[in-house]
Amino acid sequence: MSIEVSARAVLERCDILAAHSEEPDRLTRRYGTPPMTHVNDVVAGWMRAAGMVVRRDNIGNLIGRYEASETSAAGVGASGTFLLGSHLDTVRDAGRYDGPLGVLVALAAVERLHARGQRLPFALELLAFADEEGVRYHSGYLGSSIYAGRFRAETLRAVDDDGIPLAAAIRAFGGDPDALAGDARAPGDLLGYCEVHIEQGPVLEARDLPVGVVSSIQGQSRMTLGFTGEAGHAGTVPVSMRRDALGAASEFVLAVEAEARGTGGLVATVGQLAVEPGASNVIPGRAILSLDVRHPDDATRAAAGARLREHAQEIGRSRQVTLDWRELGQSRSVTCDTHLSALLARAATDSGYAALSLPSGAGHDGVMLSRLTGIAMLFVRCKGGVSHNPAESVRQEDVAVAIEVLGRFLSLVAAERGEP
Amino acid sequence: MSIEVSARAVLERCDILAAHSEEPDRLTRRYGTPPMTHVNDVVAGWMRAAGMVVRRDNIGNLIGRYEASETSAAGVGASGTFLLGSHLDTVRDAGRYDGPLGVLVALAAVERLHARGQRLPFALELLAFADEEGVRYHSGYLGSSIYAGRFRAETLRAVDDDGIPLAAAIRAFGGDPDALAGDARAPGDLLGYCEVHIEQGPVLEARDLPVGVVSSIQGQSRMTLGFTGEAGHAGTVPVSMRRDALGAASEFVLAVEAEARGTGGLVATVGQLAVEPGASNVIPGRAILSLDVRHPDDATRAAAGARLREHAQEIGRSRQVTLDWRELGQSRSVTCDTHLSALLARAATDSGYAALSLPSGAGHDGVMLSRLTGIAMLFVRCKGGVSHNPAESVRQEDVAVAIEVLGRFLSLVAAERGEP
Repeated sequence: MSIEVSARAVLERCDILAAHSEEPDRLTRRYGTPPMTHVNDVVAGWMRAAGMVVRRDNIGNLIGRYEASETSAAGVGASGTFLLGSHLDTVRDAGRYDGPLGVLVALAAVERLHARGQRLPFALELLAFADEEGVRYHSGYLGSSIYAGRFRAETLRAVDDDGIPLAAAIRAFGGDPDALAGDARAPGDLLGYCEVHIEQGPVLEARDLPVGVVSSIQGQSRMTLGFTGEAGHAGTVPVSMRRDALGAASEFVLAVEAEARGTGGLVATVGQLAVEPGASNVIPGRAILSLDVRHPDDATRAAAGARLREHAQEIGRSRQVTLDWRELGQSRSVTCDTHLSALLARAATDSGYAALSLPSGAGHDGVMLSRLTGIAMLFVRCKGGVSHNPAESVRQEDVAVAIEVLGRFLSLVAAERGEP
Repeated sequence: MSIEVSARAVLERCDILAAHSEEPDRLTRRYGTPPMTHVNDVVAGWMRAAGMVVRRDNIGNLIGRYEASETSAAGVGASGTFLLGSHLDTVRDAGRYDGPLGVLVALAAVERLHARGQRLPFALELLAFADEEGVRYHSGYLGSSIYAGRFRAETLRAVDDDGIPLAAAIRAFGGDPDALAGDARAPGDLLGYCEVHIEQGPVLEARDLPVGVVSSIQGQSRMTLGFTGEAGHAGTVPVSMRRDALGAASEFVLAVEAEARGTGGLVATVGQLAVEPGASNVIPGRAILSLDVRHPDDATRAAAGARLREHAQEIGRSRQVTLDWRELGQSRSVTCDTHLSALLARAATDSGYAALSLPSGAGHDGVMLSRLTGIAMLFVRCKGGVSHNPAESVRQEDVAVAIEVLGRFLSLVAAERGEP
């Protein structure tokens, strides 16, 4: 089977899965819904056909195991398990590659081993997580957090928009909510985790590269801030007497841009801005903004956040506008395993491609898996850097490269364990 | 009757009218509603008690006429009519002074003449307009436009939020919609119009003055503009590759501020700003802004608007963000009558107060009356410059000054016509 045929099959399978949606005219596949049951059934069939033994855990993660060779070629007893995977759920009005592409590229790599009758000196487990996006229960990484033993019982009390508690959804999806803790994977035999994912950004496209090796998953700070000035009549209050909250907010937006431009690797975004009272003939009395700051280095991110807060305070002082600043939460940066990432980079260069190292600005199941074992991630170029959007698009040639690089990567891991 | 007693009566009457509302817990009195009928009845009673003959036109404006003296003291036959007035409708969740104060200060001035048995060498007509705010039918100056002969038949087709056409509302309010054109006031005998109104701005308060003389009602330009960049993932798109629509919008908001600071008398306001898609983790792809520009001089206002448009285009070019700019409408500046305003200023200084000349940033019934006759306006200080808000507040001492100044002003007009 040529790599091109495998790549075409991956894209066709992405199309097949995309047909399973909660909504007729767009792709929305949230945790525990009937289309999730369908795609689990379909993917389980493909896994079995690729020589895997398939099981499901209680949250609904699909786990396909491809056993190791009886003994390694070097005569050493085969041992350990290497993990591959990504997720099968989607956001609302999603594209078809965010999640499924990683599952299906890994599946293709296993299929190619199976077609050659080849086994590695360790088992492979292909993880198709049931919920990474967290759309239904606002609980990102739900599937991989349980697998990684990070589940917290209070999450079970979450209720979806239709009033259905998570515990009931787990039962309806075929699992036992009281048995979740027992599904935690013991880390003892794990050799690592590798996830393939679309980049969701424009860097690979700009560099004209099919794939890239992720250096880290950036840490993130989320804040909300409000400037409170004084509303007033747009016609009657002279400019010199105004305390315009939107003026303060606008200065802050430009300060955020400047901070990001001046700090290497920092991304900082004001994605929401609401103005009150919000009438064309009323001076804004209040402006509320969101702020999202990310950087591969946690200390750099924290320092940038602190400088922006000082800047917001300065703006407030100079304009006689009060500031309220609220930290909503933060996540630490996760560094990919240096050794596994080096092997992934070598697999890329051995395949004839420059191995660009780039941070991931978005979170991935790898964040949870990093609590269990070393992780590596391979990004695949996506058109225009677009994701979380029906316009998500990947090229077949790039998928072929991803399959090839992942295959070589597994061979390199195997070689280190005594296989050629 | 002392001025203080008159002023207290004006404030008590404002309170009485404020009790007539469409809503139980806040003041909302739109055109043609039962509370409008009630306040018309109440005010008509006060007008009659002040020696006026009262009629109502078809739209529902209340017109109280205080006849001239038979002959002037100088033996010259009395002639002509001087107009006073303001409006009795309110915005939603209104204060109690925007409109009613002007009607009731004028009423107090007539009452004081009546109490002394004094008549002027011209008739006074006190106009209590039925709709200035235009809340119900989105037709500002509805009452005064009909009085001024500016009514357009298509306005009758307007429908309120409950589906009631204006024609039906006019009938329910006691008028004949087909007779509106006949209610246009002939300008032949008119000597002028004077309106008392709360400032709706903070200038008099800042200058520590009870009243001010309006120089003009500013012209206004209203625009809406949109910046379209590219949405993207807040974590994955490097800052150097972004086309952030909110960045462009923020630069424009600061440019509007700078333009207003740099152009004497200009007020310019961005009161609305909406961001799309508006998620905290998505770079804004589009930002839509309102722009409101006002200045007493129409050419200055037009030039400022043109400069701001150029500025927006420059911002778009430098950020690779496209601009759409739409002019929603404009109104010309109305200059108050120089001679009447000079008499009003003299009335203020004769009463012991500096006669600050200031433009009106808000529109008033005087805009329509200026089509019929020369107009003058007296502003009364209001607390914090607040209007269109239940917190609207005026001081009794300031109301006393307004009554005194308006009385002196009428005496000065009378003196010019041969009365001492």
